Amino acid sequence: MVKFNRVAIVGVGLIGGSLALSARQKGIFNHIVGIGRTPENLRKAKNLNVVDEFTLNLEEGVKDAELVVIATPVSDIIPIIKKSLPALKKGAIITDVGSVKNEIMIETDKLSLPGVFFVGSHPIAGTENSGVEAAFSDLFLKRKCILTPSKKTDPSALEKIKNLWISVGSEVFFMDSQPHDQILGAVSHLPHMIAFALVNYLHEINHEKESIFKFSGGGLKDFTRIAASHPIMWKDIALMNKGNLVNLMEGFQKTLEELKELINRGDGDELVRKFEESRRIRRGLIS
Amino acid sequence: MVKFNRVAIVGVGLIGGSLALSARQKGIFNHIVGIGRTPENLRKAKNLNVVDEFTLNLEEGVKDAELVVIATPVSDIIPIIKKSLPALKKGAIITDVGSVKNEIMIETDKLSLPGVFFVGSHPIAGTENSGVEAAFSDLFLKRKCILTPSKKTDPSALEKIKNLWISVGSEVFFMDSQPHDQILGAVSHLPHMIAFALVNYLHEINHEKESIFKFSGGGLKDFTRIAASHPIMWKDIALMNKGNLVNLMEGFQKTLEELKELINRGDGDELVRKFEESRRIRRGLIS
Repeated sequence: MVKFNRVAIVGVGLIGGSLALSARQKGIFNHIVGIGRTPENLRKAKNLNVVDEFTLNLEEGVKDAELVVIATPVSDIIPIIKKSLPALKKGAIITDVGSVKNEIMIETDKLSLPGVFFVGSHPIAGTENSGVEAAFSDLFLKRKCILTPSKKTDPSALEKIKNLWISVGSEVFFMDSQPHDQILGAVSHLPHMIAFALVNYLHEINHEKESIFKFSGGGLKDFTRIAASHPIMWKDIALMNKGNLVNLMEGFQKTLEELKELINRGDGDELVRKFEESRRIRRGLIS
Repeated sequence: MVKFNRVAIVGVGLIGGSLALSARQKGIFNHIVGIGRTPENLRKAKNLNVVDEFTLNLEEGVKDAELVVIATPVSDIIPIIKKSLPALKKGAIITDVGSVKNEIMIETDKLSLPGVFFVGSHPIAGTENSGVEAAFSDLFLKRKCILTPSKKTDPSALEKIKNLWISVGSEVFFMDSQPHDQILGAVSHLPHMIAFALVNYLHEINHEKESIFKFSGGGLKDFTRIAASHPIMWKDIALMNKGNLVNLMEGFQKTLEELKELINRGDGDELVRKFEESRRIRRGLIS
């Protein structure tokens, strides 16, 4: 079994905190150092026994770590890696949990990491809640985790990170970072943008004294759950996966425009065909 | 308490079947006749004790009914009312459960209903499943039901239908049919169109051997649940609420376009503001 004696977690929120809880429970992490920018959340993490100690000083926190997990918004990952490097001990492994991978892999491949290894991870897990209070040890159970090794990724470090995710209950897949960003752009980032836009739009047209949301059924609630996701995390994802996301949004806009045209010209037969296709696909969705 | 001795339910699916189950359980409906176009579903309804008897003959089925509930796709409601009228007994009340109300109220107001009363109902309840097998007696419990009386609606018939919905556990609201269609267009019909379009679009771009849906998290599953809704029912809703829906789709497209532009020009601050607004609104949503 994979084991890390001293682990530094940068960003002890929903994902970082849940990994700490789960990996400690399974005996994979022994001593956990939480690292962040402000003490409030880290103090909570300590009180909840998610971390053993914490520091606001990155270099200090990662110094003796065998494993550094970066669980911050994606735009912080590369700066944190660069800042950590001089402080890391030989043989240390860095991994992240970012939802966008291509830029991370390109940038880390450019760095010279003398005796230190980077492995890109993306656990497909999360809720619309954030912060360490939202963390729970079963978050990764039966979820998928995608690793995006490049040609430069060290096979032994990759194997260890793979085993870490398997140990917390995830099913691990390997994928190049470019198709990763396209696929996750489609099945995750695009739906989030649509949900944000829908809630913003409904709010915009809600001029009545009585909220129109009052008359929404369970459909809207489910549909917009992801619109409560973490704003800064999602700003980062949107901007870091901009190329794919803008293309996907344009493609979706075209499909929505076609649907609007079908409604506008009253083409009931074609509407039924579209809705039947949608029902069939949706019912076949893997959960 | 309101009571109907003999009730005809036209369209014994999720909504019609659930109303039958619930109202019988509460002692509101005594004898229930199911009416439909094909025997298969009605036979199931009889076997499940949702109806006491069934017929494919509308006039025959409604003949002695004190109450006729029309729970078909919305485009069938007016034709069914017209066809039923000559067969109905004096004092009979007709109600529907349609998600679009303005055209129904305009058309029923034009009919001369000698001694027969129409009340427009819209229970905001449902699941993505359909058919009588999906029916359950608690479907309306703690849900909202909107009644859309016009100036011609008989107050005593309205009171009885109001009490019917209260008796099955719903909270009843009164609203004019025009704002009803605008509001429900926004909080229900628009999200359905977006969900259908998203699933259609993801299917369209899924050219890989391995399905991209495999890597979707719980977010997409929740988000697209309503994309499995009944195709014919939704074709009818889309076409009958076309005026509002096309406007709403255009408004949403504009908001989505603005979001795309923010991403395209990398305006992180404004993205965070939009996502924060969305999170705040979504967290305040009444379930």
